[in-house]
Amino acid sequence: MSKVRIIEVGPRDGLQNERTPVPTAAKLEFIRRLRSAGLTEIEVSSFVSPKWVPQLGDIAELWPALPPGGTYSALVPNEKGLERALELSVDRVALFTAASDAFTQKNVNMTVAETLEVFGRVIRTHRAAFPGGHIRGYVSTIFECPFAGPIDAGRVAEVSTALVALGVDEISLGDTTGVGSPRDVRRVLSAVLAAVPVDRVAVHFHDTRGTALANVAAALEMGVTAVDSAAGGLGGCPYAPGAGGNLATDDLVYFLEREGMPTGVDLDELARASEAVFAILGRTTLSHAHIARLAGCGG
Amino acid sequence: MSKVRIIEVGPRDGLQNERTPVPTAAKLEFIRRLRSAGLTEIEVSSFVSPKWVPQLGDIAELWPALPPGGTYSALVPNEKGLERALELSVDRVALFTAASDAFTQKNVNMTVAETLEVFGRVIRTHRAAFPGGHIRGYVSTIFECPFAGPIDAGRVAEVSTALVALGVDEISLGDTTGVGSPRDVRRVLSAVLAAVPVDRVAVHFHDTRGTALANVAAALEMGVTAVDSAAGGLGGCPYAPGAGGNLATDDLVYFLEREGMPTGVDLDELARASEAVFAILGRTTLSHAHIARLAGCGG
Repeated sequence: MSKVRIIEVGPRDGLQNERTPVPTAAKLEFIRRLRSAGLTEIEVSSFVSPKWVPQLGDIAELWPALPPGGTYSALVPNEKGLERALELSVDRVALFTAASDAFTQKNVNMTVAETLEVFGRVIRTHRAAFPGGHIRGYVSTIFECPFAGPIDAGRVAEVSTALVALGVDEISLGDTTGVGSPRDVRRVLSAVLAAVPVDRVAVHFHDTRGTALANVAAALEMGVTAVDSAAGGLGGCPYAPGAGGNLATDDLVYFLEREGMPTGVDLDELARASEAVFAILGRTTLSHAHIARLAGCGG
Repeated sequence: MSKVRIIEVGPRDGLQNERTPVPTAAKLEFIRRLRSAGLTEIEVSSFVSPKWVPQLGDIAELWPALPPGGTYSALVPNEKGLERALELSVDRVALFTAASDAFTQKNVNMTVAETLEVFGRVIRTHRAAFPGGHIRGYVSTIFECPFAGPIDAGRVAEVSTALVALGVDEISLGDTTGVGSPRDVRRVLSAVLAAVPVDRVAVHFHDTRGTALANVAAALEMGVTAVDSAAGGLGGCPYAPGAGGNLATDDLVYFLEREGMPTGVDLDELARASEAVFAILGRTTLSHAHIARLAGCGG
């Protein structure tokens, strides 16, 4: 089996819903430790308006100060965000849409088709500035939309195909509400992989109901080799302590290594990376593997 | 795929390591709610000496008061325990051994071979009293022993085969320390199923590192149709709050239903069942599915 790429999204996806401000210096230390743990691809922040997400409002300070050697990216929500990204020479960007109009409308006040229209312009402009850059397209709510209910796999394939046709290098399929199980993974991936080459597909699972690693296993079996995760499970459902959100990178690393797929990631250093952030947030890690190590639970 | 049997072990395995005493009446109410949630097979307690496990010392009061209609069983650790079980006409019993001598020696002060010798006598006596009874044999530490390290799959198969030869109706294979991933499941089940019919095999996973449902998925793919779990994830690693132990029945039910395998279990009533016990223990549920429901995390 090919080596699995881990795309660390903790600094962006993990922090974006956290109200307690994390200082820029702490974010830089977080990213430095993620790098030192062995993670290479890191989505570090977003060019969303600071009015909407103050937590990520410091990207202009953050980006130029990133430790050297990492493969960093940032979310670009719209053309205004792209302008700011280009000013900072951000060559790897991520765009965000969904398989549900109800979801994009609640989040960015556009239909899915409208987001794709914006993306067309964003992608052209970014490509012109960085012909060798990298553009990722998030497709969220691939199984279920919190507002519209179950999502048709054909719709996910349609949006994915449109993104690839627009020129994204990679799509990341997100189970935003963490409802899915391997059957959902097979159903949706079958539809998507009929139209999109597997090496352009990443998966983004939430462990809200404990199914994230089972879903990763199902995706790997279908040939996927890119998995998103957040150190310590940062980005848990903001409504309740202990509620899992993003699959914890720690758990993903433990799982992959145990499955015989070396990751090159050091779990101790990874634990230190998220611990400092959780301390600022006044919470503790959501990673099973991390908690088990702290507790000395056998094995 | 055949319907999966869920063997609820919360009242025994979930409580045995808890120091806060749970009154007999609360246990009965717990079991009543588990029944009312739709669970049928419940391991309710153990005939271990009250000196060793005071928490389960009330089985003589508990057993005769169990709500009617359930398929109840109790752990029998030795011949002394069997005597007490026979006095109470307990027709379904479970025996406990491991794939590691270091583990059985630490736990019951016998080698694995010595436990099997005792089991031979226990099984003969129990069969004589209840020819139509049911005897389960636990094989713990199937992947790794906390004292002796990695376990050879051949050793697990050997102990499993010996148990079946001694006349147990079912073996339950336990990843005691929760270290395993699907690759381990396939490795060990391949060895065991070469010697034991699959309908005599149950799996018992711990979610210590978030891999339990991935492991269940792997076991189901290999034809296993019996899975142990504990309501709310009772029986977590006692060393740390939040550290997962037994796979939560809630998570298993959510997973199976989502995979298209109806369980007949009501998640609301199941949540109420464990909540009352956690309240006594001064803790909260470890079930992802339960926490997600409490928090209203989408989906």
